[in-house]
Amino acid sequence: MNRQKLVEEIKSKRSVLCVGLDSDINKIPKQLLTEKYPLFSFNKEIIDATAEYAVSYKLNTAFYESLGPIGWEQMQMTAEYISSNHFTIADAKRGDIGNTGDQYAKAFFETMNFDAVTLSPYMGKDSIDPFLAYKDKWAIILAHTSNKGAFDFQTIESKNSKLLYEEVVEKSMAWGENIMFVLGATKTEAFKKLRELSPNNFFLVPGVGAQGGDLKTVLLHAHNKDGGLLVNSSRGIIFASSGSDFAEQAGMKAFQLREEMRTELDNLGV
Amino acid sequence: MNRQKLVEEIKSKRSVLCVGLDSDINKIPKQLLTEKYPLFSFNKEIIDATAEYAVSYKLNTAFYESLGPIGWEQMQMTAEYISSNHFTIADAKRGDIGNTGDQYAKAFFETMNFDAVTLSPYMGKDSIDPFLAYKDKWAIILAHTSNKGAFDFQTIESKNSKLLYEEVVEKSMAWGENIMFVLGATKTEAFKKLRELSPNNFFLVPGVGAQGGDLKTVLLHAHNKDGGLLVNSSRGIIFASSGSDFAEQAGMKAFQLREEMRTELDNLGV
Repeated sequence: MNRQKLVEEIKSKRSVLCVGLDSDINKIPKQLLTEKYPLFSFNKEIIDATAEYAVSYKLNTAFYESLGPIGWEQMQMTAEYISSNHFTIADAKRGDIGNTGDQYAKAFFETMNFDAVTLSPYMGKDSIDPFLAYKDKWAIILAHTSNKGAFDFQTIESKNSKLLYEEVVEKSMAWGENIMFVLGATKTEAFKKLRELSPNNFFLVPGVGAQGGDLKTVLLHAHNKDGGLLVNSSRGIIFASSGSDFAEQAGMKAFQLREEMRTELDNLGV
Repeated sequence: MNRQKLVEEIKSKRSVLCVGLDSDINKIPKQLLTEKYPLFSFNKEIIDATAEYAVSYKLNTAFYESLGPIGWEQMQMTAEYISSNHFTIADAKRGDIGNTGDQYAKAFFETMNFDAVTLSPYMGKDSIDPFLAYKDKWAIILAHTSNKGAFDFQTIESKNSKLLYEEVVEKSMAWGENIMFVLGATKTEAFKKLRELSPNNFFLVPGVGAQGGDLKTVLLHAHNKDGGLLVNSSRGIIFASSGSDFAEQAGMKAFQLREEMRTELDNLGV
């Protein structure tokens, strides 16, 4: 998906919602477990119930890989099921070089037709380049994450007084057009600094809700004229109910989040 | 595999050789492509031909993932085929937190029975912890890699005059017992500094041969009394011949490397 299309989807849906399909086999409703493809059945119903409110879906690859080949198959089936009007993200946090990077890009952009992959910046430019070689595909680079360990290395201050995650954004935003950054929802200071440093790049924002980030604050500091961000919610939507009404409840939660987003986007003139 | 067993294997085989199964479907002998599991057939013959000289096998997950479920299946088959006397590494360069990290650990340590997984340090301690929770399993953390992009962020100097990769090693070596570090073969200065900083941790060393690293220099600076390193060679062994003698030639290359290693280990009194 190119940028223009993504922005159109955001503006017409009045939403920056990314639904995180962290479809944990141990948490999906028990009645699905007798099926051959339980994760896919679960995802299908969640997608049907939320498609109207979401602009994006993010599949956390770990929950599929942990099941072996049958999990991998269901990741692929899910990616194929999502309509081309939704921006699809493989949350894989990969990063490797040369022909290995090429293989990863091929896996997520050709074998499966994802729009974007999340990547770790640690290995540098030649680990990101293979993903930028694809037209209308996106590299989403980790900047400042929402976990406790985000302070182990990401906030190390360099001799020229920049934090590591600022160095990452400043340097890597020049590597190509289709680059987004992962920025945890609780990082208010980081949002201000990074939006200044990078007025145009989109941010992928996990951590609203369950992890304590406030939607209004995030939108205030992270938005730009194109929207400028995707706000991910996973468990708060997909596990809203563990009963047979799981899809209905997921749809309700997604609707509520979209309504909040609509209000804020209107207020911010996006 | 625990440390004692690994050290015994190194000492009895007089080898620190890790054979990298970067089994690219486009590079394996054409006659294998008619089989249902061409990568597995290829790996099986390579393993049989090199098992006597190698202490470890490393599967670069990208080459399997890029084929979809059938690739994933062959990764699993290969991991199962390798004897328990060999230290098996999933070169996955993963790194994610909480329940996602748990899922990755489960994928590589339970669904497949690898001894170790390579991990990116960028997200910090809570992205490494899930892997350290398994007894006799290993986290292999990226320190200073062998690619060009290794100078984008890994060598940023902090206010207290440490390079990022030194901060990574210094901090993370305290997180658990079973931690190794990835260190590119050409990084002579880094080997000296890191061996001083961390006398006991093993290093996984890619980049000998094809990427220009010199085995003798690497062993000189990286060894410790237990061996202290695993030296990976991929293409130089597995693609030594593209003909029907590919396994025989791979065995020959592995034998030659082991002979060089034996000589150096003897000289160093390991």
